[in-house]
Amino acid sequence: MSPQKELQVGVIGAGRIGKIHAQNLATRIPAVNLAAIADVNLAAAVELANGLHIAQVYDDPQKIIGDPAIGAVIICSSTNTHADLMIDAAAAGKHIFCEKPVDYSLQKIDLAIAAVEQAGVQCQIGFNRRFDANFRKVRELVQAGSIGDVHILRITSRDPAPPPIAYVKVSGGMFLDMTIHDFDMARYLSGSEVVEVFAAGTVLVDPEIGQAGDIDTAIITLKFANGAIGTIDNSRKAVYGYDQRVEVFGSAGMAAAANNHPNTTVYSNAEGVISEKPLYFFLERYAESFLAEMRDFIDAVRHNTPTPVTVTDGRKPVVIAMAARKSLEENRPVRISEID
Amino acid sequence: MSPQKELQVGVIGAGRIGKIHAQNLATRIPAVNLAAIADVNLAAAVELANGLHIAQVYDDPQKIIGDPAIGAVIICSSTNTHADLMIDAAAAGKHIFCEKPVDYSLQKIDLAIAAVEQAGVQCQIGFNRRFDANFRKVRELVQAGSIGDVHILRITSRDPAPPPIAYVKVSGGMFLDMTIHDFDMARYLSGSEVVEVFAAGTVLVDPEIGQAGDIDTAIITLKFANGAIGTIDNSRKAVYGYDQRVEVFGSAGMAAAANNHPNTTVYSNAEGVISEKPLYFFLERYAESFLAEMRDFIDAVRHNTPTPVTVTDGRKPVVIAMAARKSLEENRPVRISEID
Amino acid sequence: MSPQKELQVGVIGAGRIGKIHAQNLATRIPAVNLAAIADVNLAAAVELANGLHIAQVYDDPQKIIGDPAIGAVIICSSTNTHADLMIDAAAAGKHIFCEKPVDYSLQKIDLAIAAVEQAGVQCQIGFNRRFDANFRKVRELVQAGSIGDVHILRITSRDPAPPPIAYVKVSGGMFLDMTIHDFDMARYLSGSEVVEVFAAGTVLVDPEIGQAGDIDTAIITLKFANGAIGTIDNSRKAVYGYDQRVEVFGSAGMAAAANNHPNTTVYSNAEGVISEKPLYFFLERYAESFLAEMRDFIDAVRHNTPTPVTVTDGRKPVVIAMAARKSLEENRPVRISEID
Amino acid sequence: MSPQKELQVGVIGAGRIGKIHAQNLATRIPAVNLAAIADVNLAAAVELANGLHIAQVYDDPQKIIGDPAIGAVIICSSTNTHADLMIDAAAAGKHIFCEKPVDYSLQKIDLAIAAVEQAGVQCQIGFNRRFDANFRKVRELVQAGSIGDVHILRITSRDPAPPPIAYVKVSGGMFLDMTIHDFDMARYLSGSEVVEVFAAGTVLVDPEIGQAGDIDTAIITLKFANGAIGTIDNSRKAVYGYDQRVEVFGSAGMAAAANNHPNTTVYSNAEGVISEKPLYFFLERYAESFLAEMRDFIDAVRHNTPTPVTVTDGRKPVVIAMAARKSLEENRPVRISEID
Repeated sequence: MSPQKELQVGVIGAGRIGKIHAQNLATRIPAVNLAAIADVNLAAAVELANGLHIAQVYDDPQKIIGDPAIGAVIICSSTNTHADLMIDAAAAGKHIFCEKPVDYSLQKIDLAIAAVEQAGVQCQIGFNRRFDANFRKVRELVQAGSIGDVHILRITSRDPAPPPIAYVKVSGGMFLDMTIHDFDMARYLSGSEVVEVFAAGTVLVDPEIGQAGDIDTAIITLKFANGAIGTIDNSRKAVYGYDQRVEVFGSAGMAAAANNHPNTTVYSNAEGVISEKPLYFFLERYAESFLAEMRDFIDAVRHNTPTPVTVTDGRKPVVIAMAARKSLEENRPVRISEID
Repeated sequence: MSPQKELQVGVIGAGRIGKIHAQNLATRIPAVNLAAIADVNLAAAVELANGLHIAQVYDDPQKIIGDPAIGAVIICSSTNTHADLMIDAAAAGKHIFCEKPVDYSLQKIDLAIAAVEQAGVQCQIGFNRRFDANFRKVRELVQAGSIGDVHILRITSRDPAPPPIAYVKVSGGMFLDMTIHDFDMARYLSGSEVVEVFAAGTVLVDPEIGQAGDIDTAIITLKFANGAIGTIDNSRKAVYGYDQRVEVFGSAGMAAAANNHPNTTVYSNAEGVISEKPLYFFLERYAESFLAEMRDFIDAVRHNTPTPVTVTDGRKPVVIAMAARKSLEENRPVRISEID
Repeated sequence: MSPQKELQVGVIGAGRIGKIHAQNLATRIPAVNLAAIADVNLAAAVELANGLHIAQVYDDPQKIIGDPAIGAVIICSSTNTHADLMIDAAAAGKHIFCEKPVDYSLQKIDLAIAAVEQAGVQCQIGFNRRFDANFRKVRELVQAGSIGDVHILRITSRDPAPPPIAYVKVSGGMFLDMTIHDFDMARYLSGSEVVEVFAAGTVLVDPEIGQAGDIDTAIITLKFANGAIGTIDNSRKAVYGYDQRVEVFGSAGMAAAANNHPNTTVYSNAEGVISEKPLYFFLERYAESFLAEMRDFIDAVRHNTPTPVTVTDGRKPVVIAMAARKSLEENRPVRISEID
Repeated sequence: MSPQKELQVGVIGAGRIGKIHAQNLATRIPAVNLAAIADVNLAAAVELANGLHIAQVYDDPQKIIGDPAIGAVIICSSTNTHADLMIDAAAAGKHIFCEKPVDYSLQKIDLAIAAVEQAGVQCQIGFNRRFDANFRKVRELVQAGSIGDVHILRITSRDPAPPPIAYVKVSGGMFLDMTIHDFDMARYLSGSEVVEVFAAGTVLVDPEIGQAGDIDTAIITLKFANGAIGTIDNSRKAVYGYDQRVEVFGSAGMAAAANNHPNTTVYSNAEGVISEKPLYFFLERYAESFLAEMRDFIDAVRHNTPTPVTVTDGRKPVVIAMAARKSLEENRPVRISEID
């Protein structure tokens, strides 16, 4: 297919996630052309662009947003820029893929939502785990009625190591930075909305995280509109690796997804039977999901069909995270209706 | 060994659990002689006794308690008789094995505790899951420091089917009837005491359970004295069988126990890869644990060493269950100190 | 049930297997009474009898065989006594359970078979693995047509450690001592007869085993009458424990059984994910199968129904073992018809 | 990096494997430029080239071989063209990646080997499974001494469905077409050379395969130079999917690799516990290995280091396959020295 028929896209943000999206767009998705890369750190943008043979490189995202040839922008810059870039891109008539979270403020999120709706552009939020083969299969089983009515949802989500304290201080807190994926997953798997939240959280991994005003270990209980209940457990440090498991239990059965490992090799010796630890962190564990979500976004844009993760889907986990924080502060269950 | 040197015991209650304990005492535990069986339903006692060649059969437990030759009594009668029988047996200087729960009333439990302490007899409560190979191994790993400091405890406990509604009405409620095992397991695995409880519970399996004033599905969040947090999920009906899983996560690793199955056979065909469901219910799943706990009891009595599950161990889960009930009723976290 | 209505049995041989059978008969099987124990080592017989409260203890098996009250004898003495005891017991009208192998000589086996047939007594050979839950399930799947026509059979059977060299010298060789279980299992699972054998065998574990004239590592290829092919691999030393796995592959699927472990606990730490090794050796691994086979034997005797493992079933694996030995010696495939 | 510094390669053959290699070279391997594609079926070459934006498309491989700008050729055409193309490419000074097998005739293979050695070009043969994460890990454990001395090697390799009969007729037979991968894997995992082969083979899947002069089910026993023994089982039809398992057992332990599945989801219901079947066939199962082997080839060429799978590695499995065929025909073990 000649380049002119391909969708032209620009990536804003050349950090870890930006690199992944750029590589996928440049090499693994048909009918799309990665035309430009921008990052306030021009050197980072240049390095990424060179490796992918991308000609247009900028230190200013507006260059991409203002380019009439660009049909869609991929926003992978720091969280505090997301909402404004979405508003600008929408105003410029660009379709938008934006990394999570949209913002930490419902007010700003609502401005972005309004801009997207007014412009009538496609918008997809980067909750990539929905595109993971394990979780997608669990959802399919739930949607197909294979487990009957959903009764109990369980999510375990533990990182191999906490982020730097400097990051912790500006992250918005564990619920907005880390559990937000699990709040989205809870909606995705249960097929229902969270109505109430009770958060038990504490500092067990690193006292400095507590000094920074955050927690590193939590159990969040959820009540859903459809009557189901759920529990999420998080830790910022699992020494054995990245632990990402879900389970949906219902009237007709249970669907559960375990971790992925680098290989299936089992080694038995006089001491025991040893298997590989889970894949270390999100870059390895979710590599295919980043590709799948981007393919689906490009597909939705090219065919003008609804994106699988809308900007409203991007808003709801933020509301739940806020309710969780209030619940933790006041040590009581909090209704979503108290927040929003 | 001649019968005279063997410990003479009497079993009170010839129901399901009584049968198991009687069979084990009669055939699988050395240095003990099952001398007598009593049940208010004499026919049940007679049938059990005949099958095991036991001569002394009664419809009155006092016959066993009053028999000077009997050294220990095994109380497996209905819950509402436990405390009084313990008091009588202690007064008669009998060592006591009593099924859980001791009673639903802390007042009655305290009377039984006082009687046992005053008499100085050995007393063990039937929290058999502590003697299960899976859970014992998890505890060993925790005690050995293999997982470091305990951070997160997870327990899943689901029955294959709910009890009859008539039983539900007199059971004391799901927390006292079913979750009480998990409250004990939480103490056993964490090595700490529960200080706070938040219960989310609902009726999803059978509306009649709700009409009977109980729930059938719950998630209970626990906070421990050592700073750890935990979550228990229960359901009265798992269509795939008896689901009994635990997991302890800490600073140095994680220990998890899965279900037991009737065999390890895996069948692959054009539809999928099929394994056996878990063992159906507690009689199959915990058969070895009933034997192990009784062996340990007889051993403690014969050697005058502390029993592994004391009457105080029998009291604490009742307190936690009461806190859970209060938490459910008032939809707030409840401190143990509010109850006891 | 009064003792007179129970089947009276006597155990000949108070070694490891004799102890197991005696304990099961004395305590875990209804409607049978273990009346007598004999062992040329009287002290061993006395110790076993005392622990089980058995009155009649002898150093001469003929005392049991000659006792008119005894209905069945359980032969667990050394292999070289099996055939003669079977002949004597049959002549005395006793039903017979005999441990494997019946004998290493087809001639002697045939004499025993003739005696059993002439006397019309029940006879069961101790191929206990047929009664194991895993292998029984695999056979059920095969019999039910769930895997279609049998194509490929695989058996792995490895001991945790070799027997003493003194034993190796009189064992008849690995094929008759160890692989004989697998030859029986091959018949049991395939539902067919072996027609040809090719044995590849070597000494890799201990040179002294080679000096004793035996091998310790082997792969035996089988061809079945129904067209299926199979492979058995043996080793006298698996450092991780007792490895007992089977797999039957066919036109409609595959049924495979894995090892049993002492518990299902999985421990994850910074080094890896560690599970328990398999149960150490046959006493732990096959405990339930020894009980099941004895229950079935007593049942067959009491109800006069065919035993599940006949003396002919005891003969066929010996023939296959002989073919394997010839194949190894001559390094060529050997037809069963060349042996028998 | 500018295109001039990149290695220029040409792919010969635009079939299934050619497509995979071409896509990987075009999009996922740095420092290489896929400059040309040739296929006697020009339409196939054109379609592949267009999708990857490759300018030079031919129906004649000599156009690639004769192009001075091309540094390496990737030979993915039909087997009967491999040897001649290797010879031509070597003569033209091109480095060579050639799909397996090199040829079915040792004579032709030797001509190709001579040409490669004389030209001093790099040459890698496409035994991609060596690059699979599971098998590579098993080999690492063996090489590290983690299992001690190799005693028993087991390989299971079953396809989900047989090839068309027309293909069977020209495939060279199952041992050369299918088992050849396992013969290579046996060398790769054992770290030793096969010295003797015994093949048991039969027709159980499809009689037409037998009428075409081939077999579809086999068990091959191997003896290695280092004293180890091994067994390979093959079937042309496993209804549950592509079964690719290996196991190496030794004096210090065992390393085993199981199948890969599309996800880790486990579904439990009233019927059983159901997991996904293995990935369906080699395109899905070995996708990463095709990328890994090509990356390693390009790397070896660019840095002038030895290729990980040499043309001699390509010759040895052909010899073993010939020995297997002779063994099957004559129903006896065959020494490798009888063939070569």
